[in-house]
Amino acid sequence: MSHKIIRSIRRADREPVKILGDSGVATVHEAQGRVGLMRPYMRPIYPTAKVAGTAVTISIAPGDNLMIHASIAVCQPGDILVVAPTSECTDGYFGELLGVSCQAHGIVGLIIDAGVRDTVELAAMNFPVWSKAVSSQGTVKNVPGDVNIPVVCAGALVNPGDVIVADADGVVVVARERAAEVASASQQRIAKEEKTRERLRKGELGLDFYGMRAKLKELGVEFVDEEAESSSAGR
Amino acid sequence: MSHKIIRSIRRADREPVKILGDSGVATVHEAQGRVGLMRPYMRPIYPTAKVAGTAVTISIAPGDNLMIHASIAVCQPGDILVVAPTSECTDGYFGELLGVSCQAHGIVGLIIDAGVRDTVELAAMNFPVWSKAVSSQGTVKNVPGDVNIPVVCAGALVNPGDVIVADADGVVVVARERAAEVASASQQRIAKEEKTRERLRKGELGLDFYGMRAKLKELGVEFVDEEAESSSAGR
Amino acid sequence: MSHKIIRSIRRADREPVKILGDSGVATVHEAQGRVGLMRPYMRPIYPTAKVAGTAVTISIAPGDNLMIHASIAVCQPGDILVVAPTSECTDGYFGELLGVSCQAHGIVGLIIDAGVRDTVELAAMNFPVWSKAVSSQGTVKNVPGDVNIPVVCAGALVNPGDVIVADADGVVVVARERAAEVASASQQRIAKEEKTRERLRKGELGLDFYGMRAKLKELGVEFVDEEAESSSAGR
Amino acid sequence: MSHKIIRSIRRADREPVKILGDSGVATVHEAQGRVGLMRPYMRPIYPTAKVAGTAVTISIAPGDNLMIHASIAVCQPGDILVVAPTSECTDGYFGELLGVSCQAHGIVGLIIDAGVRDTVELAAMNFPVWSKAVSSQGTVKNVPGDVNIPVVCAGALVNPGDVIVADADGVVVVARERAAEVASASQQRIAKEEKTRERLRKGELGLDFYGMRAKLKELGVEFVDEEAESSSAGR
Amino acid sequence: MSHKIIRSIRRADREPVKILGDSGVATVHEAQGRVGLMRPYMRPIYPTAKVAGTAVTISIAPGDNLMIHASIAVCQPGDILVVAPTSECTDGYFGELLGVSCQAHGIVGLIIDAGVRDTVELAAMNFPVWSKAVSSQGTVKNVPGDVNIPVVCAGALVNPGDVIVADADGVVVVARERAAEVASASQQRIAKEEKTRERLRKGELGLDFYGMRAKLKELGVEFVDEEAESSSAGR
Amino acid sequence: MSHKIIRSIRRADREPVKILGDSGVATVHEAQGRVGLMRPYMRPIYPTAKVAGTAVTISIAPGDNLMIHASIAVCQPGDILVVAPTSECTDGYFGELLGVSCQAHGIVGLIIDAGVRDTVELAAMNFPVWSKAVSSQGTVKNVPGDVNIPVVCAGALVNPGDVIVADADGVVVVARERAAEVASASQQRIAKEEKTRERLRKGELGLDFYGMRAKLKELGVEFVDEEAESSSAGR
Repeated sequence: MSHKIIRSIRRADREPVKILGDSGVATVHEAQGRVGLMRPYMRPIYPTAKVAGTAVTISIAPGDNLMIHASIAVCQPGDILVVAPTSECTDGYFGELLGVSCQAHGIVGLIIDAGVRDTVELAAMNFPVWSKAVSSQGTVKNVPGDVNIPVVCAGALVNPGDVIVADADGVVVVARERAAEVASASQQRIAKEEKTRERLRKGELGLDFYGMRAKLKELGVEFVDEEAESSSAGR
Repeated sequence: MSHKIIRSIRRADREPVKILGDSGVATVHEAQGRVGLMRPYMRPIYPTAKVAGTAVTISIAPGDNLMIHASIAVCQPGDILVVAPTSECTDGYFGELLGVSCQAHGIVGLIIDAGVRDTVELAAMNFPVWSKAVSSQGTVKNVPGDVNIPVVCAGALVNPGDVIVADADGVVVVARERAAEVASASQQRIAKEEKTRERLRKGELGLDFYGMRAKLKELGVEFVDEEAESSSAGR
Repeated sequence: MSHKIIRSIRRADREPVKILGDSGVATVHEAQGRVGLMRPYMRPIYPTAKVAGTAVTISIAPGDNLMIHASIAVCQPGDILVVAPTSECTDGYFGELLGVSCQAHGIVGLIIDAGVRDTVELAAMNFPVWSKAVSSQGTVKNVPGDVNIPVVCAGALVNPGDVIVADADGVVVVARERAAEVASASQQRIAKEEKTRERLRKGELGLDFYGMRAKLKELGVEFVDEEAESSSAGR
Repeated sequence: MSHKIIRSIRRADREPVKILGDSGVATVHEAQGRVGLMRPYMRPIYPTAKVAGTAVTISIAPGDNLMIHASIAVCQPGDILVVAPTSECTDGYFGELLGVSCQAHGIVGLIIDAGVRDTVELAAMNFPVWSKAVSSQGTVKNVPGDVNIPVVCAGALVNPGDVIVADADGVVVVARERAAEVASASQQRIAKEEKTRERLRKGELGLDFYGMRAKLKELGVEFVDEEAESSSAGR
Repeated sequence: MSHKIIRSIRRADREPVKILGDSGVATVHEAQGRVGLMRPYMRPIYPTAKVAGTAVTISIAPGDNLMIHASIAVCQPGDILVVAPTSECTDGYFGELLGVSCQAHGIVGLIIDAGVRDTVELAAMNFPVWSKAVSSQGTVKNVPGDVNIPVVCAGALVNPGDVIVADADGVVVVARERAAEVASASQQRIAKEEKTRERLRKGELGLDFYGMRAKLKELGVEFVDEEAESSSAGR
Repeated sequence: MSHKIIRSIRRADREPVKILGDSGVATVHEAQGRVGLMRPYMRPIYPTAKVAGTAVTISIAPGDNLMIHASIAVCQPGDILVVAPTSECTDGYFGELLGVSCQAHGIVGLIIDAGVRDTVELAAMNFPVWSKAVSSQGTVKNVPGDVNIPVVCAGALVNPGDVIVADADGVVVVARERAAEVASASQQRIAKEEKTRERLRKGELGLDFYGMRAKLKELGVEFVDEEAESSSAGR
């Protein structure tokens, strides 16, 4: 088992990354055809956390953060660390000191399918983290791993250089090659939703303007009046 | 398998709904004999979320929100949507646009044994949601379901028209027929607790004024002094 | 099965308790050799919760809070209640009234491997709680238990009189006998970290000043340039 | 909070119970329109466990089996105990001695949304149990509850006298009033499936004889040849 | 952080270990006052697994089995390995080769709050294992730990030399000092249960000969006839 | 969102598939450098289930099995269906009839990150399934998906045509391109382990012949004699 740290990767362009970040996770996820979402157990450490950037991926042993330290050496400003342990782990791989180091190198956030600590300090520094757990459990620096290989993180495939968008609604991955296309589709979706919002605000039913009444009929769903007995379950 | 949307349901009266909402979940749950509580995994999307209203129930397929759209057509101001998937699901069935539509029709909240998205926007709109998960995962509109049939939501039976009370402590269901009685019992409980609170604040022990010393004796629990050895577990 | 409430226990001294509380959970956990941490599912009911104190331990039946009431009779100012059910339970054993009673007796916090309720009121009172769940489910007062025996709470052994330190990062237990030593080690760690922080802030790599490049080499991890094919996983 | 043990309940007839038991859980669940299934965490204690009977329902406190003892007094041959704790619990409420008592009264099985113990002995006695957990944790006999009220067990509503069908695929509830209808629908389903089985065995595609090719087309799903690049994800 | 392997420990005597093993987990747990039970997620890898022995305890890093290898050097015939990772882990720390090595040294079983692999081979060798998971995930040998210090394993405190009893109903720990007393209490319990079994087999109700009818009355539980309406919940 | 069923895929060769299947999951996982393992929650429906084959991948909506039916049209003898829902789901997507259809087309097994039903019948047919759950919950046929695109199943990336090896220890994926190399490495590993087994059987310590004594020393782990006090934790 040899391990490697890949130095130079192709990254998605700045422009689409910016647009995707402004669009938000739910919109981007829809705009790219509902793929690339991480599992919903990935939660931000503070409610206003919001970020977009390019992935530097880290495949790491349970309970060992050596490779996070190593990864910083190959990062560029605008990168986001994406950490995937090789088996389930909740340890606090990352804390305030690593956050300071990341910010010194322009790294804009952390996605970790494990634990994080010093959450109050990281929030105060405005360094956003999405994690599976908050845990003070320390890690060692004895076990090898890899940087910038494809990883599966919280159920989503991430290639180095892919775009990561994360906010209160979760974390989504956009393939580097699709970044521009998905950014454009996100903008279109936002424009379209603005019109829908107006109609809904006025009280129009989605049922009507999405044409769902026909669909209901086709599926055999009928509007009926209350059946006195069977719809009331006593206790 | 035929499906239906029941248009007209009997709803609990406004007055007890108001009182129950003011009383809060913990009090109401106690006042009605400790029944009707949903599982504690149901959490509000923002800490100050608090609501009471009448249930419009929705039995829905995993990953499909067609019936939520349909349900809005039969809602009245003061209603709360109660969404129960037919099997476990964490998808984000509901987002900001549906929230706008709900508010346009006077719907005051959402209880969903699944996921929700656009949580920042929903919080900004002050549309409260209690859910099992936050997830951006979109849903389709292809599968039939039912509106206003009895459902089991997060472990609690909900009949259409029942009272839903929800706050930071969870979600409780009060049967429509019992609303007035439970509202009254809640008010009595609050009055009684005010007196207890005063006594406790002064340092009186619950042990004493609840008469629990006798109970302890009866159960064979003794007050003793420290046994030097056996109460200290070395490490 | 006889049960007991041990009245007088030896407690850790005030001085180290204060220092440990100021140091925070992550630092203390490291300073004592990475032991004594409770499972990460133990979460504070409000984000700024932070406390240190001496443990009064409570072994309790599922769904029954009689022994919490009993424990208050043997507490001293500065104590923290540590509640361990004999089997897994999420019930809301503790609410605002018990919080009032605790504060009247100088008790400074609650650690419970189960549920808590009235979380908004407890936060408003600034009574910090770390729990496995938030639940309104009420408990009874019919079943005996023990106070001030060694307990396992959320995976950590707690002896009566031990130091409990809790904050946003979790809960850690320091053995009474080790309190002074760990307090001292915590202070040293903080001093040392301040220096590390400065170097990291300037952009020095942890990789370099922790000497991890040699470690990577020893473990067979190499820095390489991107391999065009194998590092890009198509979709 | 008063509690009661309802002595005489109306039970589903023997004949449909027999047919439903022979049909098995998956078939019955389909035949009644995919309702009434308990959550899949309910597992049999031995692989060949299979039973059908009429429900005697038990609402019970966490960690207390008093009401199971009480329920046996109101059972009849052919009954199945359905035990629903008022909050989540994994304790071993039921063991071999209770199994002996049940068999002495003709009770044919146990469905418990909690734990069971003496599983080897119960299997040897051929007393089938479906539970959430296997646990030796003993329970007390101090807390009141109810027998033969409607309960929610593992996510399904159960009324006393309903039919319970359980096998390796899980547990399903059939409402007493619908027992005959569902039994008949189950038999029809079995007959129909026999024909389907024959066609499938010969290699016919479900795609063809269920007419799903048109459905796929309508949904925009196309059969295509491999796209050399995008279908192969490197590692 | 220094680590140690404690060579010589005091072990419980053979005689009570034998009796405790014959008594089984549920009986021993009751006989010692319902303490010392591990969490019910600990499951045997084959249904007939059953063992009793003396604990050699192992505190171990996530994903690293170095200390299991080290522990074998200090074991004696009749010992059971008790492995507690310092944080949650499901890795397969132990497989067939380690099983062969254990059997060569007279070790009679493994209790591991993590994963195990080669389960078919271990079953064929009749080497019983209770674990949290079955996983092929391999571990490394890079991280230090401790042997024969007190550990918390699956929620239970285990001291080196304690008795471990494990069967299909779970795993229970008996303190070395209490082994003889608990063995004797277990035998008495078995003798007493034999009589109870006979009475129950003849149809006597536990309700009657345990005197629970009075208890029910005291708790306000009444036997009543069915209330036609309220006990039947429609669907 | 367009969807596709890719008809013709490149599959791993028969020969290495055969060797990998004979080697077993734990060995293959080690031989390919400890990658490609699915999460340990994937369990076989019967203990002797064991299979190896080539993956036909299915990306599928929660609660909808249309695409499983579609996939059979593009399978060849020796294939294994690998089903990955787009979000977490426990529904019983697959039962005996689909098993019959699969066997008619030479499909040798099913890996599904969701539920399965008719487990007794599937076991009797000797059709092996690894799943997250056993559930009778039926699915619909209304929602589109994809066949033979790369999927993430239970945490592992699977490309169409990859080798799947599954047994009692779990499920591992071997990339098509690496099949021959990993098959060869597996055979070497088995040969080497046979020698290790012999030495361990004779009582040699792994500690000695793996040279771990030096490692322990380097890591600061010392062999010591029992410290009377600190190693015995009283209760």
